[in-house]
Amino acid sequence: MAQTVRISLDAMGGDNGAKVVVDGAALALERRPDIVFSLFGDKDVVAPLLAAHPRLRDTASLHHCDVSVAMDAKPSQALRQGRWKSSMWRSIDAVKTGEADVAVSAGNTGALMAMSKFCLRTMANIERPAIAAIWPTARGESIVLDVGATIGADAQQLIDFALLGGAMARVLFSIERPSVGLLNIGVEEVKGLEEVRTAGRLLREANLDTLTYDGFVEGDDLGKGTVDVVVTEGFAGNIALKTAEGTAKQIGGYLRAAMNRSWRARLGYLLARDSFDVLRAKLDPRKVNGGVFLGLNGIVIKSHGGTDPEGFSSAIELAYDMARNDLMHKISNDLKHYHRGRFGARDGSEGDK
Amino acid sequence: MAQTVRISLDAMGGDNGAKVVVDGAALALERRPDIVFSLFGDKDVVAPLLAAHPRLRDTASLHHCDVSVAMDAKPSQALRQGRWKSSMWRSIDAVKTGEADVAVSAGNTGALMAMSKFCLRTMANIERPAIAAIWPTARGESIVLDVGATIGADAQQLIDFALLGGAMARVLFSIERPSVGLLNIGVEEVKGLEEVRTAGRLLREANLDTLTYDGFVEGDDLGKGTVDVVVTEGFAGNIALKTAEGTAKQIGGYLRAAMNRSWRARLGYLLARDSFDVLRAKLDPRKVNGGVFLGLNGIVIKSHGGTDPEGFSSAIELAYDMARNDLMHKISNDLKHYHRGRFGARDGSEGDK
Repeated sequence: MAQTVRISLDAMGGDNGAKVVVDGAALALERRPDIVFSLFGDKDVVAPLLAAHPRLRDTASLHHCDVSVAMDAKPSQALRQGRWKSSMWRSIDAVKTGEADVAVSAGNTGALMAMSKFCLRTMANIERPAIAAIWPTARGESIVLDVGATIGADAQQLIDFALLGGAMARVLFSIERPSVGLLNIGVEEVKGLEEVRTAGRLLREANLDTLTYDGFVEGDDLGKGTVDVVVTEGFAGNIALKTAEGTAKQIGGYLRAAMNRSWRARLGYLLARDSFDVLRAKLDPRKVNGGVFLGLNGIVIKSHGGTDPEGFSSAIELAYDMARNDLMHKISNDLKHYHRGRFGARDGSEGDK
Repeated sequence: MAQTVRISLDAMGGDNGAKVVVDGAALALERRPDIVFSLFGDKDVVAPLLAAHPRLRDTASLHHCDVSVAMDAKPSQALRQGRWKSSMWRSIDAVKTGEADVAVSAGNTGALMAMSKFCLRTMANIERPAIAAIWPTARGESIVLDVGATIGADAQQLIDFALLGGAMARVLFSIERPSVGLLNIGVEEVKGLEEVRTAGRLLREANLDTLTYDGFVEGDDLGKGTVDVVVTEGFAGNIALKTAEGTAKQIGGYLRAAMNRSWRARLGYLLARDSFDVLRAKLDPRKVNGGVFLGLNGIVIKSHGGTDPEGFSSAIELAYDMARNDLMHKISNDLKHYHRGRFGARDGSEGDK
């Protein structure tokens, strides 16, 4: 790895345009001065924004793109209109060519995944990419995948997700052997989808050095942080993610209403203000902004489209952590390790693990 | 309907035994004096508990059962050991024979559903029963089904769930034409599972008088209360339900920790105590205790196994509302109405709607 971390940005992605991206990059650069940014976007829009951040302007490169992908573009449409030339495509392509270590975009998820797949291709031995989310839990954080790259997954794909998520957990949480659970309904071995049961059996049998398989987990284990990595197919994963976000907002609304019910409550709120600020920070969705596309020949981070500079800088810092700790290399090793074990060639002859 | 509402109780179901059931029934009777209970369970256990509640003892009938279904019994095992004779079976059977209008059990969900299916059978034109949960929302309450009766559902089964949930919403919320949404990922018509898309198209085309089809909803719409009825297959529904429960607990934990951070926060908490009580009541899972089994020839209510008398009385009152407002009759009518429309015989000749 280079001494700097090179991050390519789709400067035109997101609901709020290039200003959020540029201001977010400037914020991230303050905290991680070893980032070198490549920005892709409309020069007439981006260059004036850079002027406000001399340090970013002087260290970043700006690459003009005529085309940007609309937030409501369908994936096929985005590919047709934006392949080769859009700011989104070119930020991903920078990872492919090796000019960047990781790409970040706040553009639309479907288009970003379609382009990432087309440009970077899925890794050998991986059938489908997944989107991994970082989930705040009562114990800290967990990784949940897939939260919406694809609908449905067979047993092998679930195992792939376990390997991908396990490697990411080692990078993100600095633990040797993260615990992995399969999301299911009911914790008895007999319950649940056939493919989830099969994946569970195979993971148990594989007895990997790189992760601990902890069996089935249920929806309420997500908030508890029962395991480091929760594996599921993308439909249930996306529903779970959005349900949790919705529930957090709902309770936030209840709390606000409760603290406005009476003068005593308002006074109590003022007294406890510092604590409410801590709580608010804990629930702040900008803090854990960033879905990580895993299983492709390169890492792409999807930021929330509606985020602000603070939130976008979180996505950048997540990208930084993934690149700085060489997630791609860890994933490759883990996959080799798993497939070696699987085909009974555990002799170390091809080993770099 | 009888002037009283006759409710059969599985007195032996639940983690905490018959005391919760009997005390819960006594509580419900205070609030709904027109309930007549039939209790099924071990006479030696239940009779002494009834002694503490003269009014309940004098109005209820107690039916001795030797067998009770264990909380960890597998459905097949429960059926083998408990059919015909267990307290669970006999409380359900009382609905079948017409001795009771509705049954309530805090016993294990799998066994209760297996017995309910076996005893009551699914309704004509319904392929599979569903479990409907009442979901507290920012706007009030919604109904979500299926939350775990079966894994997977085809388009017709999803439509069945929409009809069942629609009838329940009319009963529970006293609205003429509840809004119904299909849980999906992404709100564009092109997205999501094939069966969800097909169900959406058919519901739109059916243009029913008994409900308004409002299109796809996402996980975060559950907490918002975007629609009155959210329809999904049981795997995603169960994950969503438990994820929301887990998130609520997690935030409750954050809040407790925040209010203990400093003396100012503790003082603020004391001042705002009334408001926190309101908030706690709003988040109290006992308030919305009760999964409603729909699609069978009779209504069975599943209470949380770990609930207390207050929670069990909520499940009883939910059962009361369903019976008092003749949910079964409304469901039958809605199904007739739908199937008449479907086969082009909308001439009203068989109409009782």
